[in-house]
Amino acid sequence: MPRTKGDHEARRREVSEAVWRVLAAHGFGGLTLRAVAAELGATTGLLTHYFPAKRDLVAHALDLLAERTAARPRRAAGEGLAAVRAALLDILPLTAEATASNRIWVSSWDTALADPALSDDYGRKYARSREKLRDLIATAQRLGELPPGDPERVAEGAQSFVLGLVVQALFSPTAFPPERQTELLDDYLAALG
Amino acid sequence: MPRTKGDHEARRREVSEAVWRVLAAHGFGGLTLRAVAAELGATTGLLTHYFPAKRDLVAHALDLLAERTAARPRRAAGEGLAAVRAALLDILPLTAEATASNRIWVSSWDTALADPALSDDYGRKYARSREKLRDLIATAQRLGELPPGDPERVAEGAQSFVLGLVVQALFSPTAFPPERQTELLDDYLAALG
Repeated sequence: MPRTKGDHEARRREVSEAVWRVLAAHGFGGLTLRAVAAELGATTGLLTHYFPAKRDLVAHALDLLAERTAARPRRAAGEGLAAVRAALLDILPLTAEATASNRIWVSSWDTALADPALSDDYGRKYARSREKLRDLIATAQRLGELPPGDPERVAEGAQSFVLGLVVQALFSPTAFPPERQTELLDDYLAALG
Repeated sequence: MPRTKGDHEARRREVSEAVWRVLAAHGFGGLTLRAVAAELGATTGLLTHYFPAKRDLVAHALDLLAERTAARPRRAAGEGLAAVRAALLDILPLTAEATASNRIWVSSWDTALADPALSDDYGRKYARSREKLRDLIATAQRLGELPPGDPERVAEGAQSFVLGLVVQALFSPTAFPPERQTELLDDYLAALG
């Protein structure tokens, strides 16, 4: 029977799922054709059809991370300080899915820092994220929910805070359960006011 | 001529220096016997004498990172809020040396998260760092330089803030030069007061 386009796409999705599970368990350091093949119950030969070289596998993993991050569910935002809080909560590892995704992000930093072009990409990605946050902060300031001040600078601080909280929560999940992460974020936002 | 103990130790130091330079340039993802040999101008055969397996090389790299972090120069601390500020400034990538060291730390997170025992080690390491910070914060509170409140919780927030600032500064050195990092830290400390 000839393979249909549907078969082909279903197979691609299975491969992507296997890549994601390998990343969540072993990080980019453990991402090999062999590990993905084992996760998929396939041969490495089949995988070389999708990923002729290791760098193709890494590129696919980075695309997958970007896609899944863009597509992740987000809190209903409203505006003002509530929207700032929602955007920051959306980053934190408060669910199993967000924990896996954050673990993969943190793991990808090693790969990204080793490649100047990718490192610049990451720099731009975090800059865009700060811009979004800056706009939310500026609105909260206009509404009088945050004190006046350079919203970009406030965004730089807030993004620092959540990224570092992500890292600590990944290494010490017991010390940083979701409630604690939320309390710490609320402390941070209260101190801004 | 027989090799002396001094020769042997000098050679070990050279090997460690080469491992450090490979880590600073390529991270843990780029740490291979071949890369260290190239950096050292030696054969991989010589290196297998020091590191029979890849995991021995990684273990040495992690030891080196811990040693160099413990031995790094620290600001004269005083006590109170000034000591809290000095301890946090000591973490930030404000010099080339601190940038290399932070870059290696961030890169090591991928390796650490992939290994449950190492991940626990890292969790304990960050917990000890928070404890030191907590004690400095408690003193600043007793001196009336910070408002009362759970010093542990304040330490969790402050450590989050600097770790995330490290990550952003590594990816966007132009947006986060040393003066900007220092301003952001001072904003953070001012908001605590």
